Amino acid sequence: MKNLVKATAAVAAILLLAGCGKLDFSNDNSSTGTSKSGQYQTTGVASDGTYQGVIKNGRYQVSKSRGLMMQNNNQNGNTFNVRSMESGLVSLSQKQFSTDKYDFEEGQLLSTSVTRKWLGRQKGKFSKSGDTDNALGLNPASNGSTDPNKRVPIYLQQLLEQDYMVKSGNSMALGGISIGLGMNAIDYYVKTQYGAQYQTNISAAETLRMGKEMAAKVVTRLRQMKGVAANTPILVGIYRQAGQDSLVGGTYQAYAVSKSGSTMGTWHGINEQNEVLPVINNKKPVNNTVATDFSNFSAQVRSFFPTLAGVTAQAHYENGQLAGLKITINTQFYGQTEINSFTQYVSSAASKLLPNSAKIEIDIESTQGMQAYAERDTGAKTFTTHVFDSY
Amino acid sequence: MKNLVKATAAVAAILLLAGCGKLDFSNDNSSTGTSKSGQYQTTGVASDGTYQGVIKNGRYQVSKSRGLMMQNNNQNGNTFNVRSMESGLVSLSQKQFSTDKYDFEEGQLLSTSVTRKWLGRQKGKFSKSGDTDNALGLNPASNGSTDPNKRVPIYLQQLLEQDYMVKSGNSMALGGISIGLGMNAIDYYVKTQYGAQYQTNISAAETLRMGKEMAAKVVTRLRQMKGVAANTPILVGIYRQAGQDSLVGGTYQAYAVSKSGSTMGTWHGINEQNEVLPVINNKKPVNNTVATDFSNFSAQVRSFFPTLAGVTAQAHYENGQLAGLKITINTQFYGQTEINSFTQYVSSAASKLLPNSAKIEIDIESTQGMQAYAERDTGAKTFTTHVFDSY
Repeated sequence: MKNLVKATAAVAAILLLAGCGKLDFSNDNSSTGTSKSGQYQTTGVASDGTYQGVIKNGRYQVSKSRGLMMQNNNQNGNTFNVRSMESGLVSLSQKQFSTDKYDFEEGQLLSTSVTRKWLGRQKGKFSKSGDTDNALGLNPASNGSTDPNKRVPIYLQQLLEQDYMVKSGNSMALGGISIGLGMNAIDYYVKTQYGAQYQTNISAAETLRMGKEMAAKVVTRLRQMKGVAANTPILVGIYRQAGQDSLVGGTYQAYAVSKSGSTMGTWHGINEQNEVLPVINNKKPVNNTVATDFSNFSAQVRSFFPTLAGVTAQAHYENGQLAGLKITINTQFYGQTEINSFTQYVSSAASKLLPNSAKIEIDIESTQGMQAYAERDTGAKTFTTHVFDSY
Repeated sequence: MKNLVKATAAVAAILLLAGCGKLDFSNDNSSTGTSKSGQYQTTGVASDGTYQGVIKNGRYQVSKSRGLMMQNNNQNGNTFNVRSMESGLVSLSQKQFSTDKYDFEEGQLLSTSVTRKWLGRQKGKFSKSGDTDNALGLNPASNGSTDPNKRVPIYLQQLLEQDYMVKSGNSMALGGISIGLGMNAIDYYVKTQYGAQYQTNISAAETLRMGKEMAAKVVTRLRQMKGVAANTPILVGIYRQAGQDSLVGGTYQAYAVSKSGSTMGTWHGINEQNEVLPVINNKKPVNNTVATDFSNFSAQVRSFFPTLAGVTAQAHYENGQLAGLKITINTQFYGQTEINSFTQYVSSAASKLLPNSAKIEIDIESTQGMQAYAERDTGAKTFTTHVFDSY
């Protein structure tokens, strides 16, 4: 399943890149958004505290570089990283760019070719033809070693740009930029083409040190781009990717804002952790109480139907406290009434057994897709449930 | 995709049947329900106007006959029928069994073997060995003809039982029974084993006439069963199945309640229709305004992204008026922020272009499963949206 997901994501990424040059949106200018400024309109607000998306000339502005990763043969194609890096950067951006004033646009400054160069290694004496080594590479040059502990790893794996737009007279203008630096915690590499996969582990401290160096370079380069003013705020977040087999994404480690010029503001540390429950291989859980609560919930839920395929969760911690729990329950195909009852039962069990200090989402899936889900916000008393029915 | 769904459902039905004799629930008696009567507990209320499900000795009471169909070689395996027949019977039951007083239990009276016999043809002079012909068959005996217009078709394809339980001192007792008769609109058959498929069309009037005859027999037989009192209310609904290739299920045509003995009460006609939008093959839509509104919505949504795979809907009409619209939008894999913006955009377009007199659900799916959904109840002004994120 995991492999299928990865394969699909890889294909999709390629499609997105391939599609860049030939986007053929229909040129329908009728607005469905709530505001419209000249050629711009927005997607309309779905809920409080979220950004509206920018639509230009009736078309959604697709990012030019999204989905692009360091193009080695062993790229970490974990889609959990891709998604959590994106939504994490939106969350960080809310600290700097208020959702009332700013609208969201996918990154438009970094082109595919520029991003590809920036993700490469710097030119060095061990550069090989066909390598992506170049003067613009943010990753340091190779030292020629293939030893896991002596070689120079690829630190930066992904680059993400998000633009925050403000109304400007009858149009919209770039009001701020957010950049996510997707750093490897583990760099996967091969010694010979199609050879076995090796890995270099990179410490959290090294991730931070390298990320901060790269952030300064990125900001300097962005300031030289057309449309970026000397005082356009640029937020940079350093994201540490989870390993390629992880069933949960990584987290941001730190962020800083450059208010003007190429100086970065103060770096703010971010203390967040993700883990998959139940923990395996005798790994120590981040929080024993949460792990025990989840285990009790899982046992309770499993007693309901004989053939539940699995109950797993992604737990998200902020400053050591559980901040979110996303539970997935895989079932066989059941009848509509069974799904209704099961969803009620799961909500009751969750109300009783899971901590109410964190946001909880429970997805009930079968081989035919999502059957139902239940959700409770931080501090709320009851779960909202929805069963996906059909006529 | 359709075939895969069908195959999965068939496998699941077999698993459910196979599983009947060896349910191995853990015997955890700790209650998560909101009420508990002796060995019984309930699943807990998820929302107003829905039934709580009955749990007995810590186990959900799986139906003995659910998923069982007339066992010919050409059974109509359309899972939309199975689901809409189930949820339709729950809706009908609410007219007779109040959700405040009654709890829901999957049918426990009809065993697999009894259901199989009832679904068969009656014994006749054209009965062949290996046929399911038997004295208890609710379907009429064959007349030996294989001509589509002269043969006696299989009228009854599926039988569904739902039990409605009431508290009785420290325990629970059967308070009412609902029976769904799943009638064929088209009976699929072969003339020789593994031969070509032929079909006999059955008119709506014939469905009703046969269904009413069968209802009387079923009620008489149920009254003789252990646990069914002479005055236990029995509701019978006549469901007309959609064809095997339909992308929406059938509808109930009529229902009646037997308050006591084997007499049926008045039959109430049900005027409901389902259709798939957009209509194809120049078929006339049930309601032109709805079809046009949907077509405008679809065009608006397609202009957002270049690679939307499809926008389709199941429309449900009651007494000629649109009562519900379930829209499915298939997308390629997009980024998290793209899905966020797209969901906002879809909700805005739906608010503007779709009728607000009916309940609307919009599912946004990709090859990786459900990405987001938006929902608006009848008469409500705004859509509730949910994007399926991950950490």
